[in-house]
Amino acid sequence: MSTFVVIGGDAAGMSAASKAKRDDPDLDVVVFEKGEWVSYGACGLPYYIKGEIQTLEELVSVTPEEFREERDIDLRTGHEVVAIDPEKRTVTAEHDDGEVTVEYDDLLIATGAEAVVPSIDGRDREGVYTLGSMTEGKELREFVARSREDGPLEQPDRGPACHFLESCEGAVGLVGGGYIGVEMAEALAENDFEVHLFQRGDRILKGFSEATSEAVREHIESKDVAVYLNSEVEAFEGAAQRAAEESSGDEPRDGDEEIEAIVTADGERIEVEMALLGTGVRPRTDLADEAGVELGPTGAIATDEYRETNLPDVYAAGDCAEAEHVVTGDPAYVPLALTANRHGRAVGQTVSGTPTEGGGIAGTAAVKAFDVEAARTGILDHDEAMEAGFDPVTETIDAKSRAGYYPEGGTVKVTLTADRDTERVLGASLVSEYGEGAVHRSHAVVGAVTEGVTVAELANYDLAYAPPFNTTWDPILTAAKVLGGEL
Amino acid sequence: MSTFVVIGGDAAGMSAASKAKRDDPDLDVVVFEKGEWVSYGACGLPYYIKGEIQTLEELVSVTPEEFREERDIDLRTGHEVVAIDPEKRTVTAEHDDGEVTVEYDDLLIATGAEAVVPSIDGRDREGVYTLGSMTEGKELREFVARSREDGPLEQPDRGPACHFLESCEGAVGLVGGGYIGVEMAEALAENDFEVHLFQRGDRILKGFSEATSEAVREHIESKDVAVYLNSEVEAFEGAAQRAAEESSGDEPRDGDEEIEAIVTADGERIEVEMALLGTGVRPRTDLADEAGVELGPTGAIATDEYRETNLPDVYAAGDCAEAEHVVTGDPAYVPLALTANRHGRAVGQTVSGTPTEGGGIAGTAAVKAFDVEAARTGILDHDEAMEAGFDPVTETIDAKSRAGYYPEGGTVKVTLTADRDTERVLGASLVSEYGEGAVHRSHAVVGAVTEGVTVAELANYDLAYAPPFNTTWDPILTAAKVLGGEL
Repeated sequence: MSTFVVIGGDAAGMSAASKAKRDDPDLDVVVFEKGEWVSYGACGLPYYIKGEIQTLEELVSVTPEEFREERDIDLRTGHEVVAIDPEKRTVTAEHDDGEVTVEYDDLLIATGAEAVVPSIDGRDREGVYTLGSMTEGKELREFVARSREDGPLEQPDRGPACHFLESCEGAVGLVGGGYIGVEMAEALAENDFEVHLFQRGDRILKGFSEATSEAVREHIESKDVAVYLNSEVEAFEGAAQRAAEESSGDEPRDGDEEIEAIVTADGERIEVEMALLGTGVRPRTDLADEAGVELGPTGAIATDEYRETNLPDVYAAGDCAEAEHVVTGDPAYVPLALTANRHGRAVGQTVSGTPTEGGGIAGTAAVKAFDVEAARTGILDHDEAMEAGFDPVTETIDAKSRAGYYPEGGTVKVTLTADRDTERVLGASLVSEYGEGAVHRSHAVVGAVTEGVTVAELANYDLAYAPPFNTTWDPILTAAKVLGGEL
Repeated sequence: MSTFVVIGGDAAGMSAASKAKRDDPDLDVVVFEKGEWVSYGACGLPYYIKGEIQTLEELVSVTPEEFREERDIDLRTGHEVVAIDPEKRTVTAEHDDGEVTVEYDDLLIATGAEAVVPSIDGRDREGVYTLGSMTEGKELREFVARSREDGPLEQPDRGPACHFLESCEGAVGLVGGGYIGVEMAEALAENDFEVHLFQRGDRILKGFSEATSEAVREHIESKDVAVYLNSEVEAFEGAAQRAAEESSGDEPRDGDEEIEAIVTADGERIEVEMALLGTGVRPRTDLADEAGVELGPTGAIATDEYRETNLPDVYAAGDCAEAEHVVTGDPAYVPLALTANRHGRAVGQTVSGTPTEGGGIAGTAAVKAFDVEAARTGILDHDEAMEAGFDPVTETIDAKSRAGYYPEGGTVKVTLTADRDTERVLGASLVSEYGEGAVHRSHAVVGAVTEGVTVAELANYDLAYAPPFNTTWDPILTAAKVLGGEL
């Protein structure tokens, strides 16, 4: 009897465990998860905090009991793996009652990622959150519920100059303009909070095209979110701290009291009840590193196309691992849910006897912000493209989302990037009103960048057309035609 | 100075004329159009008849004046071409005041298609329509307006058994369950007509998968459209005819009076005020044929990848021509708007000096019916697949259109067909609630069938994911995974 051990019980880990056991019921499958939650959709947390989802349990696709009883997986929650011994082929985990060591034939490291906490003064204060785990999601929801106990806050009559108001009751600060920042801006603003979003760089959603970033920023500002670009957060001040400073007394320590204000490097001071750090994640690699598993150039665990690491029969998948980019062929670190599921599943299939490639990544991502949706895929950044040996050209077009004469359509803004030399499509970024198809349309470009299609070939795609869905030339095709004219 | 002559002023013709003139302003571009309308969106007619679009002019993307004045195209409406002389390289057209003959250097035949009128007894009666031209669209809208003059009809309390009622005021019959039948069912039912849809075969939308056909049929039946499958319409009876038959007197001639009822081969008799024939189209090829232009196996004009016919410098594009199918490589006849635009544009580019392939066709199509949307692409029919040398396997899955926990999602039903031997994706058919993305998702499969991607490769596509848009595995990926399990 062979044993497959999995470290980490979220998307990659549980996909691997389930697939392996389904394909080879004789396999012993042991999963160690340090927390209590497994197989949960962290992507749904903003909607839970917003109040569109009522319980955390709804975010769980399969419960621990189902894994144990229906899928016959030896799932051990509350078990934190502290060591991997690749010589002895063992894994050692600590739990409340002691320690356990298990031998493996195959091992999957699926330790995920953790929030990056920048070294901002006051980051340990009460009221300063990150959002990576179910527990953190719960805390944030409780914060919202507490603040709204007396009913929704009166919406102050505020424009973009809101942050100059003397005092803002119900104000919150979001640090970082990525997915979490944007999705939480919606979740909190729709709960009548006054939302301040701080972005260090000159645009939000920096993985998307400039045109997409700009469109989303304009939209969220129209929803009364104050967006601060080129704004470095320097400190989370507490009430006592301020009092102390004003009386020139001793400064109290971090975490002693609740956050009262966000202070930026250029001296702006915004009073807030809460601050959320959404400044990215980094792979959890310590355990792997200590066991001699090689990390790649991105800092995440390096794997081959079967997600196998440098150690035999030791695999890595999900947010702790890098993967080859379909456009550049180089390793990339894009920790997202589908890759974790897909690569986990592939590993499960491989260890159960059918070697399976999980496929590369295109860096595809989607986000909804209030009433707009956006997606990106492939390589858009010109520096990144040039580093990979391309000569990038980019065009952005605005196109109608339905036939011009058809009621209720909107606009799809498509940015397309190609290589001047080979005319190959490198990437795309799209934004439209929610429901007008920016995200689902991006599916076409994922195929194009994966297959190495040229702009002219993409422009000739026989895409579906009918007046309620697009113009005769879908926006994707129009973008390809226009970009083709530049090559 | 070189002259480019175009026969036919709709999508293919005007795309070619515009592109040729834009790319080579020195070119003389002459377009002969027998009617008065050019460059119109016939696909929008059902929405004009429904009342969502208020004027026929809205369906026109560029007016004759704009073509003449802004684009400097010698557009001659009211000119019917009666002969092409490929030896002398001339085209002769008749108009109200006589005849004109023009020499061409390059010629594009873009004569379009015409409605197939089956030999049903009484087909010339008043109240029996087809829908292919702007004029016919106008007549149908006038019919709707007339019938609704006293305000909307009282919606009778009718179920599927409606057609057994003694007499149906405001009843209409649609013959043929293709795009026109389905779109006009919506247009008329939403105007409170009692709609009867007759389909000769055992399902509507026969180019789509059975699962899609079934889902759309169930949906339109839920909207009180009576659908008659395996039902051959035998006659359109008139009032006098019936009276005459009843008194065994002489039968009056066709067209003498208005339609009163539709009679089917199995003896059903449904009283209707109007009947619309939506039984397909055929290419208009007489002119080309007489000039020695070769027709292909589909009966439409044969062309090479540049849309050039067997005659030098004579091109054909749009609804009168066939084109190579991206899956089979064989000629196919799929007369749709995008192909006409794309191939017309390619011809325009070619005759202006840049030889341009217009690309093959994937047989992609989309349709909205009330609150559902559907799309299809590639090869789905098993007989057709086997004829092309494939061993087809098909699977249909139901998947959630958004994350299970996200509000307001629906279901996307995906049918995927692949070749067992090569595992290549051959085609797909999708249906969902309107707005839940069946059509835009089909874009991904168009790329897959065009590039010859395998089911496993498609399943590994890094498609965009976020809870408001799909489950972690988009329905397309789930379908590929499930079908992959069958191979």
